[in-house]
Amino acid sequence: MPCAKSLARAPLARAASNALHAPNARLASLPRSNVFAACTKMAGDHGAVNLGQGFPSWPVPQFVLDAAAASIRDSEAGFNQYSRPGGHPLLLDAIARFTASRFRRPISEENVTVAAGAQGAISNVFATFCAEGDEVVFIEPAFEMYSRMAAMHGCHVRGVPLGNVTGASVASTSEQLTLDIPALEAAITPRTRLLILNTPHNPTGKVFSRAEYEAVASVVRRHPRLLVLSDDVYEFMVLEASLEHVHFALLPGMWERTISTFSAGKTFSCTGWRVGYCIGPPELIAPLTSTQSIVSFCAAAPLEVAIARSIDAAEALGYFDSLAASLRHKRDELVAALGAAGLKPIVPGGGYFVLCDTSGLKAAGGPSPPSALADDNAFAQRRDYLACAALTKSVGVLGLPIGGFYSPANRHLSDSLLRFAFCKADGELHEAAERLREAKARGAL
Amino acid sequence: MPCAKSLARAPLARAASNALHAPNARLASLPRSNVFAACTKMAGDHGAVNLGQGFPSWPVPQFVLDAAAASIRDSEAGFNQYSRPGGHPLLLDAIARFTASRFRRPISEENVTVAAGAQGAISNVFATFCAEGDEVVFIEPAFEMYSRMAAMHGCHVRGVPLGNVTGASVASTSEQLTLDIPALEAAITPRTRLLILNTPHNPTGKVFSRAEYEAVASVVRRHPRLLVLSDDVYEFMVLEASLEHVHFALLPGMWERTISTFSAGKTFSCTGWRVGYCIGPPELIAPLTSTQSIVSFCAAAPLEVAIARSIDAAEALGYFDSLAASLRHKRDELVAALGAAGLKPIVPGGGYFVLCDTSGLKAAGGPSPPSALADDNAFAQRRDYLACAALTKSVGVLGLPIGGFYSPANRHLSDSLLRFAFCKADGELHEAAERLREAKARGAL
Repeated sequence: MPCAKSLARAPLARAASNALHAPNARLASLPRSNVFAACTKMAGDHGAVNLGQGFPSWPVPQFVLDAAAASIRDSEAGFNQYSRPGGHPLLLDAIARFTASRFRRPISEENVTVAAGAQGAISNVFATFCAEGDEVVFIEPAFEMYSRMAAMHGCHVRGVPLGNVTGASVASTSEQLTLDIPALEAAITPRTRLLILNTPHNPTGKVFSRAEYEAVASVVRRHPRLLVLSDDVYEFMVLEASLEHVHFALLPGMWERTISTFSAGKTFSCTGWRVGYCIGPPELIAPLTSTQSIVSFCAAAPLEVAIARSIDAAEALGYFDSLAASLRHKRDELVAALGAAGLKPIVPGGGYFVLCDTSGLKAAGGPSPPSALADDNAFAQRRDYLACAALTKSVGVLGLPIGGFYSPANRHLSDSLLRFAFCKADGELHEAAERLREAKARGAL
Repeated sequence: MPCAKSLARAPLARAASNALHAPNARLASLPRSNVFAACTKMAGDHGAVNLGQGFPSWPVPQFVLDAAAASIRDSEAGFNQYSRPGGHPLLLDAIARFTASRFRRPISEENVTVAAGAQGAISNVFATFCAEGDEVVFIEPAFEMYSRMAAMHGCHVRGVPLGNVTGASVASTSEQLTLDIPALEAAITPRTRLLILNTPHNPTGKVFSRAEYEAVASVVRRHPRLLVLSDDVYEFMVLEASLEHVHFALLPGMWERTISTFSAGKTFSCTGWRVGYCIGPPELIAPLTSTQSIVSFCAAAPLEVAIARSIDAAEALGYFDSLAASLRHKRDELVAALGAAGLKPIVPGGGYFVLCDTSGLKAAGGPSPPSALADDNAFAQRRDYLACAALTKSVGVLGLPIGGFYSPANRHLSDSLLRFAFCKADGELHEAAERLREAKARGAL
């Protein structure tokens, strides 16, 4: 047992230590808890099929692996040393050609900058163009890192919720989710620096239509200081022939003010490689490269070269079509299994995920208490987390609670929602489907 | 020729575009010009041996390459997907064991966090613990990214210059460079959040002695809010048996307030892989992991696993000793060649670089004009840059001007200094030495 003297000193010592170790106010404002980590642990504890996190569990395509092994082995070529902050010249060249063919406009290396994953690219956009007190607008639910990045850069968030995500009028497909243009316009103020768009949309899978984006563009035109971040990381995962991926940057007047972000990790099923990129006008791209040079200098150079070669090879191999076809098949299996189990999926038009309405799940209890909706750290008291826990225990399948994808004012909308990733190996999806069927049969659902 | 109307509109259009595209005030304050890029171009234009940038030009060790190719090929193991923001568990485990053996104290995974290179790790320290108006102190000359990161996070810089770096009392070895402890103490104010130390030191090669670090620690103890960033990326490049690498974190009372940073890229000659890490108390490490999760989520996962396996293999292979022996040989060759050419090298005790006094070089002209010393963008008008250009043209060997390694108040100290990297393949060093000999023989030096 410690002596009286050391006990008496302990509080003071602790106070001094806390002041020394305290992160800055922006970091201190971030949630201390992590729903991903809690869910991963829960899945492990219950032997559940984990459909929480959005990474592919199938092998990386062979031609991509071969390209990486070759660029690493070719040490004489210098691919294992620093590339350049804007990207390895081979990758810039490949991206410029690849983007020009999709954008149907000239794209040069000055229109491209590479970062440590699309997330690193988005983080660079915040670090470069946002400042303390700026406002950021996005459509909710939204990838939760947007709001964390906003907090990290001293920005305020205004979330514009998609309609028909829950309640009596809940959508049966992601395309039925509605975008409230007057609400979007009302959310934008003279302080708004960044509007973040995302199509196909995480977590709903909505593929925004040209008409919807035209309406957004008409709002953007009225706000001279507004930049647009178009998060297009799921571009190659449009799953319906009737839907088209629209690049917001290509709408009239939008090129000069739009930064589009893309993910090599999502496109080539190697999320751990951390290679992403931005496309935009040179005036926006050059400062992003400057930021990248300071933040972590460059992306992982041999993997940049591997992505360059993969881009060059992919089209001839018909890779993009086969990726979408494979995902369509996986989506259909999971949607059918969830629907048969009574979980009311909103069938996604694109992306990696299917959002489900769990309002029939009695075990998850009633609405979240307002205090839990307001507190980022109280996710475990919310209904969506309780629904996740109930399904994990009774069915053995884990879907992600998405309260963190809403700002506190709109968070009640997530009460009945869980996000299931279908970017998983067929064996995992079969197992999840079988568990759902079996649980339904024994009345657990 | 454009019509009168479009000409009249051009300035207005440009003004609107500038407001839209303007980076935030912190980014706008950064130098727009890049001495590295200018030097790389100059070396190319003149066919010079480029000893400017500090990356190894020899092949990555075979066991390290093999580890990377294996972790990429082993797609079933999931190494190509996201690892974790704090680091892949295999890497955390390897680093903890490796560090415990060097630090001779228990190190657990809670003491380790992985980032996208040591530069990414240092950037995370700024993003986590520094805020607008904080002050940062470091010993100059210093790796120029420290001051860029400070600017990016709204911090003020106070540089404490090493003595005997130039002038009549110029040191002949890096250990003769003096650290002015009263000047260090005077630079620290109640607003100082971070003191950055670096040993072996870039660009001088100085290996700080235990007595010097004890004196620094005695200053640190008097400032309760001061954190220390100990940049130890050149730890395995101590080149004299008489010198020892001292971990500042291990001095009495310093563990709780010190974050030590390390570079797998420097240690294993793969600077393009972007794997670095921090060691420290859990109270400092946990918020760094939180920052990493937001900034770019994780490092390049398969390369993390490769570094884990390389760490495990290196000691048995005697790798660290052979790295230092090889660098010692390279240093000796370059130092001899520079000395014979009359360029007065300060013989480095460690690291990758040798700093040279070029005051005898008439072609570089007189002292830099004060306006060029004060302006970060005016590097091309400074004497060190003119010395670099003169040597590149007349000798065909490029050394880096290091004006950017000093804050404006101390920048005159760099007037006669050039930094030459000896982390180069023997063929390049032989060629540089031969060119220096030949230039001396024909009176060009």
